[in-house]
Amino acid sequence: MRGAGGRSLGSAHLTTERVPTMKILLIGATGTIGSAVAAALAPRYELLRASRRGPLPVDLADAGSIDALFARTGPVDAVLSCAASGGLAPLSTPADADYWRGLDGKLVGQVNLVRHALPHVRDGGSVTLTSGRFAEPVPGSSLGYLVNSGLAAFVRSAAIELPRGIRLNAVSPGWVRETLEHLGMDPAPGTPAADVAESYVRAVEGTAHGEVLT
Amino acid sequence: MRGAGGRSLGSAHLTTERVPTMKILLIGATGTIGSAVAAALAPRYELLRASRRGPLPVDLADAGSIDALFARTGPVDAVLSCAASGGLAPLSTPADADYWRGLDGKLVGQVNLVRHALPHVRDGGSVTLTSGRFAEPVPGSSLGYLVNSGLAAFVRSAAIELPRGIRLNAVSPGWVRETLEHLGMDPAPGTPAADVAESYVRAVEGTAHGEVLT
Ligand SMILES: NC(=O)c1ccc[n+]([C@@H]2O[C@H](COP(=O)([O-])OP(=O)(O)OC[C@H]3O[C@@H](n4cnc5c(N)ncnc54)[C@H](OP(=O)(O)O)[C@@H]3O)[C@@H](O)[C@H]2O)c1
Ligand SMILES: NC(=O)c1ccc[n+]([C@@H]2O[C@H](COP(=O)([O-])OP(=O)(O)OC[C@H]3O[C@@H](n4cnc5c(N)ncnc54)[C@H](OP(=O)(O)O)[C@@H]3O)[C@@H](O)[C@H]2O)c1
Repeated sequence: MRGAGGRSLGSAHLTTERVPTMKILLIGATGTIGSAVAAALAPRYELLRASRRGPLPVDLADAGSIDALFARTGPVDAVLSCAASGGLAPLSTPADADYWRGLDGKLVGQVNLVRHALPHVRDGGSVTLTSGRFAEPVPGSSLGYLVNSGLAAFVRSAAIELPRGIRLNAVSPGWVRETLEHLGMDPAPGTPAADVAESYVRAVEGTAHGEVLT
Repeated sequence: MRGAGGRSLGSAHLTTERVPTMKILLIGATGTIGSAVAAALAPRYELLRASRRGPLPVDLADAGSIDALFARTGPVDAVLSCAASGGLAPLSTPADADYWRGLDGKLVGQVNLVRHALPHVRDGGSVTLTSGRFAEPVPGSSLGYLVNSGLAAFVRSAAIELPRGIRLNAVSPGWVRETLEHLGMDPAPGTPAADVAESYVRAVEGTAHGEVLT
């Protein structure tokens, strides 16, 4: 965190003053990854939790609801999105709307989040999105590849346009262990959600900009 | 071209039989690149030319018009798209619709073209799309990066789902010389459209599958 953060003040000063804390907005806070990110951030920062079903309501697929969210939160130091997702969509899915279901929330929605969040992010703050990755193409993964690669390319190229020292990154998790367990699959190749959460903490507290963190 | 193509029969047989020719549908045939592709293909194949203003009308942003196009063409051996495009879109573009203008035709439209074309492409035929590339991020290029990277990832991953030996590729041109001239810029770093067209010919006549040709 450049500028607005207060962490570096912490241990060196033996003082009774409260360390200035960051105000962080987390979208998708109730999800598998989001709840691990919330657990990592809540002890140290002021954390505002949002998703379609609240506590703070927002639907990334509805840009108006993003504006309404920031009208409630006021200025923030960091915005994180661990929201939305798309299942597999075979190329032969009959209806276009079914094939494209993953696009609006995860790709268009997260890009709109960046665009609509910027006026509300303090100088030197950060925005962190979530992409994802596959080990290799499998039937039904083409939209996932499109979305994840599009997001990664957006983050890398949009970074040069961010104003006021605001940083932009994405975290690209592989399979999360808890998700594999939930699906009744072998959890061994998965990464525990708590470890994935560390990448989001790194994105908020570190200096990464225009990067896709894995 | 695997299967349906007839080129390999050509020179070896001294016969008066006509070499079976491919029927090729070219979308964006009136454009800078498309007209060079048309010039390369028309002497050897049966070429059908389409774009929003015709001769065969189609708007890639309107999936119904893609179905209507194939109802007119009947089965084809190859489909090429050199259509659509998006200008630069600054991240700070006020209206979402203006920022996203390049998405519908070039990304969603070309993917829908693949999905809607497949039932009409003969066994062993091919579909070739157009992506693009930048030397490096410049202000306003974030949507272009998103679209081009999303398309490339789609082509590579969707390839494994194509039925009946149909091949899928994209051509990723850098600056085209004629475009630079048209824009009043230094044409020297550009590639002549006729050379770019050779990549499309290679995609139709060769064996590439799931590749992004540069
Ligand atoms: N879990 C994995 O193994 C894994 C691996 C790679 C990438 N990812 C990616 O990581 C992200 C989170 O995954 P997850 O497994 O944690 O998902 P999850 O458990 O399904 O949680 C999704 C969270 O996002 C919220 N949400 C969903 N759609 C939303 C929308 N349109 N607007 C606002 N909030 C929305 C959900 O709450 P509401 O329903 O209340 O909105 C929930 O809080 C997804 O993008 C996923 O693709 C996950
Ligand atoms: N030229 C370059 O330097 C360059 C470099 C890299 C990538 N590219 C990409 O290559 C593609 C073609 O570029 P270009 O310079 O040849 O473009 P262009 O000269 O503007 O021609 C575009 C062609 O596509 C048609 N078209 C446009 N929108 C369409 C739609 N929604 N549905 C169907 N047809 C449509 C146009 O005809 P109608 O107006 O009648 O529809 C025209 O035939 C674009 O995707 C562009 O981004 C170009």
